[in-house]
Amino acid sequence: MKLYTYFRSSAAYRVRIALNLKGLSYDAIPVHLLRGGGEQLQESYRAINPSGLVPSFEDGGMTLTQSIAILEYLEEAYPQTPIMPADAIGRARVRELAQIIACDIHPVNNLRVLRYLVRDLGLSEEQKTEWYRHWLVGGLEALENHLARDLAGGAFCHGDTPTIADCCLVPQVFNAQRNGIDIAAYPAIARINAACIAMPAFVAAHPSNQPDAE
Amino acid sequence: MKLYTYFRSSAAYRVRIALNLKGLSYDAIPVHLLRGGGEQLQESYRAINPSGLVPSFEDGGMTLTQSIAILEYLEEAYPQTPIMPADAIGRARVRELAQIIACDIHPVNNLRVLRYLVRDLGLSEEQKTEWYRHWLVGGLEALENHLARDLAGGAFCHGDTPTIADCCLVPQVFNAQRNGIDIAAYPAIARINAACIAMPAFVAAHPSNQPDAE
Repeated sequence: MKLYTYFRSSAAYRVRIALNLKGLSYDAIPVHLLRGGGEQLQESYRAINPSGLVPSFEDGGMTLTQSIAILEYLEEAYPQTPIMPADAIGRARVRELAQIIACDIHPVNNLRVLRYLVRDLGLSEEQKTEWYRHWLVGGLEALENHLARDLAGGAFCHGDTPTIADCCLVPQVFNAQRNGIDIAAYPAIARINAACIAMPAFVAAHPSNQPDAE
Repeated sequence: MKLYTYFRSSAAYRVRIALNLKGLSYDAIPVHLLRGGGEQLQESYRAINPSGLVPSFEDGGMTLTQSIAILEYLEEAYPQTPIMPADAIGRARVRELAQIIACDIHPVNNLRVLRYLVRDLGLSEEQKTEWYRHWLVGGLEALENHLARDLAGGAFCHGDTPTIADCCLVPQVFNAQRNGIDIAAYPAIARINAACIAMPAFVAAHPSNQPDAE
C-alpha cells in the first residue's frame, strides 16, 4: 500500500498513526504542500486525488482519499488491533469525537484556508493568528467538554486502547502546540495526548520522524 | 427519538433525510440559529451539545452530535433501508464522498464562519460572497471529478439507492442554490440531486417543509 503524505499534514498524520497501530507497512510518497506552488495542486497529483489534498491512499487497485474514510476502511479491511469499539454506541461516540476535530476544527484552520486569508483577503498576520486561535480554542473547549461528559473511562478518548478519535486528537494537538497554544487548559485532552504519544505507533507517525521532515 | 434541528441547517437536513429514508419517526425540536444571539449557544442547549451546533440527536438515553456520526449510528442501529453499500470498498467510497462535503466544503462556508468574516474581521458582503464562491466552487469541482471517476453506476452517488453521500449532497446543493450558484456546470451532481429530490424522503426533509420554516 501507498500513502501520499506530507510530514506536517494533520490529515496524513492521522492515517500514519492508524497504519502503524495496525502494523501495516506502506510506501510513503511525499507531496510537498509548499514547494512549486504546492505539489498537491499539480495535474499529476490531481489525477490521483481530484481534490488536490493529502492524504491519498492506494491499496490493491483502489485509490481512496479523505482521512476519515481511509481510517474506517483500514478498520474494515484490516481488523487486527481494532481502532473502533466493538459496540454501536461506542463507535458512534468515537465518530462524534473524530468529527468534532475533522469537521469543526481542522477545516477552518488548515494551510489552504490560512493562506487564503492572507494572500487573497489581505489580512494581517495578527488577524490570521486571531482567526486560528478563535476556531481552535472554541473547538478544543467543545472537545474537552464532550470528553468530560462522555468519557468511557480508560486512558484514551474512548476506553483503554486508541481509536480513530485518538488518531485525530494527536495531530490536532501537535498543530495547536506548533501554533503556540498551551493545551494544559484542557486536562482531558492533555492527559489523552500524553498517553498516546508515549506509544511507538504514534512516535513513528510524528511529523519529525517522516522521510520528508525538514 | 428526538432531533434538535434548524430548518436551514445543512447538517440537520442530512439527518432528516436519513431518518425519513429509514422510515423512523422523530420529534423535531427547533433550535433557532439566529434568534436571541443564537439559541444553539445558550447554556441550556450547550448542556445537550457542548459544541453549540445543530443537529443533536437523542435515542433512548443517548445523546449524539455530529451529523456524520449520527448517520453512521442510524445505519448500524436501524439497518432497514440501508444507506451504506454492502461491501467495504463501496462503503469507503461513500464515506469519501460524504467527507468531501462534510470536511472540505461545508465547514468553511457555514453560518458561524460567514458571520465571523463580516462581524469580527470586518469583511464586506462582496468579500464574503467571494469567499463562499471560492470554497464552494473548488469543492463542487472536486466532488464532480470524484463522482465522474468513481461512479459505481446507478442514479445516486454510489449505486441505485441513496446512501450517506446523497444525504450530504442534497443539502449542499440546496445551500449552493440559495447562494445563487448554478449547479448545471456539474452534470453528475445535478443529475444525482434531481434523482434524490424526487423522492418523498428527501421532500419531507426539505427546509421549506419543516415546522420551523420561515
